[in-house]
Amino acid sequence: MFENKTTTELHTLGEFGLIRHLTAQIELQQQSSVRGVGDDAAVIDNAGMMTVVSTDMLVEGVHFDLSYMPLKHLGYKAVMVNLSDIYAMNATPRQITVSLALSSKFPIEAVEELYNGIYAACAKWKVDVVGGDTTSSKSGLVISITAIGVAHKDELVYRTTAQEKDLLCVTGDLGGAYAGLLLLEREKEIYKSNPGIQPDLEGNDYILERQLKPEARGDIIPMFKEMGLKPTSMIDISDGLASEVLHLCKESGVGCNLYEEKFPIDPMTFERARSFNLDPTTCVLNGGEDYELLFTIALGDYEKIKGNPHITTIGHVTNAAAGYNLIIRDGSVYPITAQGWDAFRKE
Amino acid sequence: MFENKTTTELHTLGEFGLIRHLTAQIELQQQSSVRGVGDDAAVIDNAGMMTVVSTDMLVEGVHFDLSYMPLKHLGYKAVMVNLSDIYAMNATPRQITVSLALSSKFPIEAVEELYNGIYAACAKWKVDVVGGDTTSSKSGLVISITAIGVAHKDELVYRTTAQEKDLLCVTGDLGGAYAGLLLLEREKEIYKSNPGIQPDLEGNDYILERQLKPEARGDIIPMFKEMGLKPTSMIDISDGLASEVLHLCKESGVGCNLYEEKFPIDPMTFERARSFNLDPTTCVLNGGEDYELLFTIALGDYEKIKGNPHITTIGHVTNAAAGYNLIIRDGSVYPITAQGWDAFRKE
Repeated sequence: MFENKTTTELHTLGEFGLIRHLTAQIELQQQSSVRGVGDDAAVIDNAGMMTVVSTDMLVEGVHFDLSYMPLKHLGYKAVMVNLSDIYAMNATPRQITVSLALSSKFPIEAVEELYNGIYAACAKWKVDVVGGDTTSSKSGLVISITAIGVAHKDELVYRTTAQEKDLLCVTGDLGGAYAGLLLLEREKEIYKSNPGIQPDLEGNDYILERQLKPEARGDIIPMFKEMGLKPTSMIDISDGLASEVLHLCKESGVGCNLYEEKFPIDPMTFERARSFNLDPTTCVLNGGEDYELLFTIALGDYEKIKGNPHITTIGHVTNAAAGYNLIIRDGSVYPITAQGWDAFRKE
Repeated sequence: MFENKTTTELHTLGEFGLIRHLTAQIELQQQSSVRGVGDDAAVIDNAGMMTVVSTDMLVEGVHFDLSYMPLKHLGYKAVMVNLSDIYAMNATPRQITVSLALSSKFPIEAVEELYNGIYAACAKWKVDVVGGDTTSSKSGLVISITAIGVAHKDELVYRTTAQEKDLLCVTGDLGGAYAGLLLLEREKEIYKSNPGIQPDLEGNDYILERQLKPEARGDIIPMFKEMGLKPTSMIDISDGLASEVLHLCKESGVGCNLYEEKFPIDPMTFERARSFNLDPTTCVLNGGEDYELLFTIALGDYEKIKGNPHITTIGHVTNAAAGYNLIIRDGSVYPITAQGWDAFRKE
């Protein structure tokens, strides 16, 4: 099909490179298009109240493995991934549309399970399913969800507005979803080589739930309001802290110092990572799928978050020239590089 | 995976049956969710100005065949399919999001071609690409587009509000996209059996364009305004006239009489259908992909459309008890049945 042209394989650009490459030429024409490609969600102005739109596609064999991902959990997770993007704008999701491509291997009961997960996620955050498309697929399952939210104009928080000297904060703990994935992958391999062995997942509930049933941080947005806190910038952590902090800093034109000793890691994540001979810090930086929020606040707002069990300060914003630095426990400094998950990476 | 449960194959419900089955339990919770699943697009209220949302997924091997569909045309068509749904609400599209799942067989140049088509369609109707997701796929290409439009509350036209005695009208002509598809399929078969033979597509420009580069009827919406005409109900014709008129009538709780002799059919469509030993009326009723608008108007509005070259009156609305009837040229009456395209039909 493409014989006579010079061609470039997708993985040379990577997912973000490809998106930048494809969207560089876009010039927004509609006055109501306040923010287009490049943040967690697009922003549409309706006379002051902003409509916030985000979309994510999950593909079987790429984003999920049905051999250990129950369909109900998959539906739940597919919604959470999208809601997380809306929350990362400091907005509130209200509606979603759901498009599915299904191969004929799925009986209706399986699709129902998937939808039950979708509905459970929507019920949890009072979000309506307002539309979608359901079609057949020649191969695996594809789920494409678009989430639509709302925010007042002055409430919106972008990823482009971090300021030098701001504090860098995260919600919850990090690395757990990746530790859960490692565990599931290990049990799958054992099962494949000896189907008689039952999976040994006991005592790992927390990290398994982090992987199989992640929860978007919809609780944080009203908490910010109660605290009278508006972050100076925000992004959700879907691809690992390293990738997200680089996005936020590069798009804000700033640098950062992160302190390894501050990273919030659940004891189970720590222990599991060790048992896989992995540095827990690596799980935090490169693991992904935690769906926590990374945000910056003005120094003067520190008192508002001090002692809050949901929020950890992990570093601060510097000027761009200082670069992106990780200060590890012994005090040595390493540059942060993006090794987050890339959909087009060659394995 | 599903061994221990009673299972039902997807095709037993069909695409619309499956959607109804899966969405029957939805209860909208948000005050701003004016209309959810079941129309061309969802409707969200922003204090009077309505946000209209529609989504469509196109899957390689199901909705398109890359052996004769150039990628640029595919991108163009994928957008038009979605804009058509917004126009069918009597609304104006403003933004789209684009999600792609791509197998590694696509070089970047191919993805650019696809995007060039997407951008061309957006430029034509002044629509912004405001977001999306690009990921890899283990198999074919999947395109999921969500279109977002706007309309004043009192401008919106649903598919549920046709009234007895209304006139049934369509824009443009019908059946052409299907005639174009038949031609492309024939040439593909010839090429497969003898790759030395060049495709013979000459003199078929119109029907090929109807199939490969359909145009949403964005011209009709401002025309309605100029004419001071608000249809009583409207739907776009994506799956063939039979399927769409049944949707519109069933959801409005009315019946209809359609007159075969009134069907607008382009001479080339007519001739091609005959050359394939097909009744041109069958192409109109069951062909699909014309992306024209089917709408009803009050009898008293007839003078507004009389003589308009873009609009043809093809029948009228009756009470539900009278059923859904096609009156053919010799005066005999046949019940209209849905034989439109169904994504889950077994071949």
